[in-house]
Amino acid sequence: MYPRFLPGVLIFKAMPSISHKGQIMPASPIRKLIPYAEKAKQEGKTIYHLNIGQPDIETPEVMLSAVKNNTLKVIEYSHSAGNESYRRKLVTYYNKYGIQLSYTDIMVTTGGSEAIEIAMMACLNEGDEMIIPEPFYANYNGFGIQAGVKIKPIISNIEDGFALPPISEFEKLISPATKAIMICNPGNPTGYLYTKAELEALRDLVKKHDIFLFADEVYREFCYDGKEYFSVMNLQGIEQNVVLMDSVSKRYSACGVRIGALISRNKEVMAAALKFAQARLSPPTFGQIAAEAAIDTPDDYFKKVIQEYVARRDFVVEALNNIPGVFCPKPSGAFYVITQLPIDNSDKFCQWLLESFEYKMQTVMLAPATGFYSTPGAGLNQVRVAYVLNLEDLKNALKCLEEALKLYPGRTEFKNHEGISLKV
Amino acid sequence: MYPRFLPGVLIFKAMPSISHKGQIMPASPIRKLIPYAEKAKQEGKTIYHLNIGQPDIETPEVMLSAVKNNTLKVIEYSHSAGNESYRRKLVTYYNKYGIQLSYTDIMVTTGGSEAIEIAMMACLNEGDEMIIPEPFYANYNGFGIQAGVKIKPIISNIEDGFALPPISEFEKLISPATKAIMICNPGNPTGYLYTKAELEALRDLVKKHDIFLFADEVYREFCYDGKEYFSVMNLQGIEQNVVLMDSVSKRYSACGVRIGALISRNKEVMAAALKFAQARLSPPTFGQIAAEAAIDTPDDYFKKVIQEYVARRDFVVEALNNIPGVFCPKPSGAFYVITQLPIDNSDKFCQWLLESFEYKMQTVMLAPATGFYSTPGAGLNQVRVAYVLNLEDLKNALKCLEEALKLYPGRTEFKNHEGISLKV
Repeated sequence: MYPRFLPGVLIFKAMPSISHKGQIMPASPIRKLIPYAEKAKQEGKTIYHLNIGQPDIETPEVMLSAVKNNTLKVIEYSHSAGNESYRRKLVTYYNKYGIQLSYTDIMVTTGGSEAIEIAMMACLNEGDEMIIPEPFYANYNGFGIQAGVKIKPIISNIEDGFALPPISEFEKLISPATKAIMICNPGNPTGYLYTKAELEALRDLVKKHDIFLFADEVYREFCYDGKEYFSVMNLQGIEQNVVLMDSVSKRYSACGVRIGALISRNKEVMAAALKFAQARLSPPTFGQIAAEAAIDTPDDYFKKVIQEYVARRDFVVEALNNIPGVFCPKPSGAFYVITQLPIDNSDKFCQWLLESFEYKMQTVMLAPATGFYSTPGAGLNQVRVAYVLNLEDLKNALKCLEEALKLYPGRTEFKNHEGISLKV
Repeated sequence: MYPRFLPGVLIFKAMPSISHKGQIMPASPIRKLIPYAEKAKQEGKTIYHLNIGQPDIETPEVMLSAVKNNTLKVIEYSHSAGNESYRRKLVTYYNKYGIQLSYTDIMVTTGGSEAIEIAMMACLNEGDEMIIPEPFYANYNGFGIQAGVKIKPIISNIEDGFALPPISEFEKLISPATKAIMICNPGNPTGYLYTKAELEALRDLVKKHDIFLFADEVYREFCYDGKEYFSVMNLQGIEQNVVLMDSVSKRYSACGVRIGALISRNKEVMAAALKFAQARLSPPTFGQIAAEAAIDTPDDYFKKVIQEYVARRDFVVEALNNIPGVFCPKPSGAFYVITQLPIDNSDKFCQWLLESFEYKMQTVMLAPATGFYSTPGAGLNQVRVAYVLNLEDLKNALKCLEEALKLYPGRTEFKNHEGISLKV
């Protein structure tokens, strides 16, 4: 009990306190700007949403029709590991990428999110450490807190496009508490596509220390410039260490179906994961129907989508680099870029864009990169741009950004991480 | 690394070990019998499934059509707390039960399972204790392990139909580590419907110790014999302590849509819960479409369903009590009974039914009650019967059970909990 003040009375109001995890759990760094966006909309501003990885691309017709044409009379629980027919069909999907699996290596999850949650709970103890190159997908922090896992970030640099940090830097962080390394490839938020050589270097490290290698490969389809995607599932000699998290959300622009997968050839991991899956009963039935049908999506669909994303990326990267004081590497995957801006504080800047700025009654919503770093103070002059809008909207959005940078009171000289002025 | 023996070679095979939670997480006590059921089916036996709460009742047409007729082109993420239109409509649903809510008191979850998971993480710390009258829904154990919460069972008795144990028994278990009491009302697996007086006694206890009261009320619609259902949400004076977990799974026979709700008037709890919900992004879109439409299910649907369940319950309870040595109370809610059988070990018996018994090439699959108790050794002579099949199938199933009890090698004299023979 604690005292509460009400007009004229001091009373003791009973109220149990929430958990420590409930207190330290981070609010979504992207979603916390939503109230400002709502206010801007009420004021009549058009907002270009480059802040969230919600593509505007249409979900494949084959998925939508499968759901519309379902003839179920009772929407029953499915198997906790997902429908066997879907798991078997997924084997053929992975085969196309040269990944050989048995359907028992695959557990269907409620989105990629649940795959990460379950993998952490099944593999790591409270207090164990997991090394993740940063900037990284912000929710890895939240899942770490849920599982009591300590995340050890290892910084990657905008100068080389966020390539894998040197293995020697990983070695410095490895302690007896280190239980896993996690990567996202192609990367959210960086768009960086790891090379086979980088992955093999990671393989050697993982093998040397006999730790888990977690890989989030949900952007597999989005690889550009003819560069080769190489899956951790094909790294020889660490078959028992690799756990893959996957999702159909981005692949088929179907984020709301909430279907992902947890994949490993390690039978103990899969058996433990299944117990967590049994507790929550089953993944969504309609989502599984859509996702199973999705495997028949014609190749043509991806060709068009990839053409579209490449055109968007090319435009965004060029437009950004043409703004004085801005630097943006050109990544070969996913649909994000992290760009450096001549600003003091990306959280403030993103809020200011919504609250205090407009260009012809338009503004742009961006994701402050601070949310993608776990190291305090990192990412203050970076934002993530998700190029999930059509070229016309992107053009308007980038024009807004250019104008905003002229007016923003917290504008700074553009410096690299060593404090050297690069160009203004 | 640890040594592994392969024919002719002793090698050190690299393989990181899984987590402690992954090891101690219980396998579903119901689902672990599945391999025996599959084998029995392969041998040509017909199995009557009274083991799982998967109703055979058809999902309301209004839900199925809403999904079939959706016109979405992009299946997007929804709000992490669920679609606002659905949350507002849920307010009208709860209103029908005299529960006054604001839509901000309601967070849509991925099944009732996720509501329990998030509530535990948001409210309880690792090591905190939660008191639950047993027998209880087996997965509470699993969610407890996930959250590091210690479950303290308090035994209820078959003799009085599993009524609320005396408050004095709760008092004996309360320690400084006690952070919550959890109930399921109407109860799974007991079918027991708590009276207003029982709930008010709990209210006083919760208020006295200022702890959380978690209530799983997913069987709200299934109350029989004109008995009144009283929600914990209407207990005066503990508004800040009550957390309600709900689900559409049983209500509309729509277990596969995976839509539930976490409900509380405690703003701190809801704010913390939202952070966990944001990490997993959103509940399933198609499920929310179905669940929102479900609120327009005609009253007539429930009238028929309830008539059907009452007829089934009456048949099952009478048939069970007519078998020599069997005792089954007559519960007023849900669609389960826990019945006492003249057997040595319900796990063995349920396995034997599938593995070694047949009556005219038929057998019955039941849930051993041991899985619903956390006290070791409890429930050894009890099983849970889910009356989720039609009357004809129930008749055949009960006939199988009667014949099985004549042949089962582990048959015992029927004794009550004090070891007194009651009837054979």
